[in-house]
Amino acid sequence: MSTNRADGSHDVPARIIPVPETVSPQMQAIIGRPFDPAHIRVPETTEKWKARVKVEADKTAAALPLLCKRLGVTVEPTSINGVEAFTVTPDVIPSANRDRLLMHLHGGTRVRYPGLSGTREAVLMAGFAGFKVISVDYRMPPDFPFPAALDDAVTAYREILKRAAPENIGVFGTSAGGSLTYTTLLRAKAEQLPMPGAIATGTPTVDLSKIGDSLFTNAFVDNAIGTQDGFIRATALLYADGRDLKDPFLSPIYGDVHGFPPAILTSGTRDLYLSNTVRMHRKLRAAGVEAVLQMWEGQSHAQYMSDPTAPETREYHDEIHRFFDLHLKPAT
Amino acid sequence: MSTNRADGSHDVPARIIPVPETVSPQMQAIIGRPFDPAHIRVPETTEKWKARVKVEADKTAAALPLLCKRLGVTVEPTSINGVEAFTVTPDVIPSANRDRLLMHLHGGTRVRYPGLSGTREAVLMAGFAGFKVISVDYRMPPDFPFPAALDDAVTAYREILKRAAPENIGVFGTSAGGSLTYTTLLRAKAEQLPMPGAIATGTPTVDLSKIGDSLFTNAFVDNAIGTQDGFIRATALLYADGRDLKDPFLSPIYGDVHGFPPAILTSGTRDLYLSNTVRMHRKLRAAGVEAVLQMWEGQSHAQYMSDPTAPETREYHDEIHRFFDLHLKPAT
Repeated sequence: MSTNRADGSHDVPARIIPVPETVSPQMQAIIGRPFDPAHIRVPETTEKWKARVKVEADKTAAALPLLCKRLGVTVEPTSINGVEAFTVTPDVIPSANRDRLLMHLHGGTRVRYPGLSGTREAVLMAGFAGFKVISVDYRMPPDFPFPAALDDAVTAYREILKRAAPENIGVFGTSAGGSLTYTTLLRAKAEQLPMPGAIATGTPTVDLSKIGDSLFTNAFVDNAIGTQDGFIRATALLYADGRDLKDPFLSPIYGDVHGFPPAILTSGTRDLYLSNTVRMHRKLRAAGVEAVLQMWEGQSHAQYMSDPTAPETREYHDEIHRFFDLHLKPAT
Repeated sequence: MSTNRADGSHDVPARIIPVPETVSPQMQAIIGRPFDPAHIRVPETTEKWKARVKVEADKTAAALPLLCKRLGVTVEPTSINGVEAFTVTPDVIPSANRDRLLMHLHGGTRVRYPGLSGTREAVLMAGFAGFKVISVDYRMPPDFPFPAALDDAVTAYREILKRAAPENIGVFGTSAGGSLTYTTLLRAKAEQLPMPGAIATGTPTVDLSKIGDSLFTNAFVDNAIGTQDGFIRATALLYADGRDLKDPFLSPIYGDVHGFPPAILTSGTRDLYLSNTVRMHRKLRAAGVEAVLQMWEGQSHAQYMSDPTAPETREYHDEIHRFFDLHLKPAT
């Protein structure tokens, strides 16, 4: 049983959380993985940051060719308005998607997954949902703190607006990429650029400060990222580079989202960022934005795309596909 | 940090969960309430069950006149096709709602809130959303276990179908009432009755067995009902009266929901039944049902209607109102 403190805090006892029987075997394996303590260690020097990023990026990039082959997707480096990017093209594009173009902003706590490794989510989207994608390889700390990533995203978006009509454009991303989707729209609005037709943000880290109830309730219930303390907080500070963490261009939960396009938001019941997904969904709804929420049983942060063979991964992409299909103008 | 067992279970350490700063002051007070250990005590005799139910029912009923006055709602006892019920009428009915009629199935673990006390949620709906409501006072254990409640709900629904066109009818309820909404539709489908126009289910307890990840992850994180063990399990057994808890007419998560009408489902991030809301949402989506999910920051089981003065309570009802307005045929 819990006990209560004078300030309303609850002392929740230790507990054992079994792997749920309500998810696929693939998802059970993911949910049953031990938390990797390496995740919370903070590199002490710029060189160690870079070394850590490189190890993960190399590993992810090495697995991409097989994923591309399985899903029938081609990835090619490109430059878009001077910003590094990748063109991600499915072998088969449904006729309704012929004029549609997605802009992808990858995740990785604003520090990880540079270069090719950042395209994994775009490959899944192209392969499962049949969209052409431009995945933006935005600059990141330690070398390039805020506002480099946002500058790159907005610069790329300006060019994408020349290649497709706004109502044909979708923007999507997970975690840091979900948050960057919102800040890109905030900047686009400030610069009087047209809004895209729709957006899809997975467990967007829309608040860099330690605010949001699930940062406490789901701490170490989430086996993917565990806690906002340590590594995640260090990446936030590295990215913010001394700026106020509640600046809306860093933490878009504090921005004005009126006029935003239809949005689909995704989280999982064990997600450390469950609350921030929920808060953003409510904020969008309160601003009159057509915003829908999908939630996945037992999943921690961004596990809906951990395993391309899991039925949940296909279902997740089916939902995004359906949403974009509803809100992006089809080819005529 | 969590540690891992061979079967994939995680040992999650004890933690302090503070009251979130991301909700209204009214909701902070609710979230900060201590868990009431009386909630998990199981009455030992039929008389003690009845005594406990009476205390809660009397308390809730006593508070109703003031609530009705504040919200401008009238409650009158009625009988509908031989089933006890209440007609709940708002002073002001928007013209679009003139021909619309909601059927309400109250919550309370299938045992609690008989008589007038069961109408509280209907009063809120009538007052906040401007619908006429028939609140069904279905029979309950210990005297009347399954299938009495379901029989009463379906009998009432048959009569309501004579008073309004199916496309003008909405059905709603919270917790046990949300689950009963689904089982009523399963039975209506089996009896080839038409489906209503839309349904709204708040944190529906669609699985009477101890399945659903949040029954473990949110145990005692939820300060409203705490745990499925003890009292809640006892009520499930009392209701099931020896039947298999996975019978779809007891646990509609195991039923066939194809052909169900548009549904809005509600839960909170601390809700013990978060997972079962999420599972039902996914099940409906997978069956091609137009189902949407709303989720509330920091809330435990059904706290979206704890305090009628909380802005979250109004916002919750605004969402349900908007959903019914979209999916129920307006008066012509």
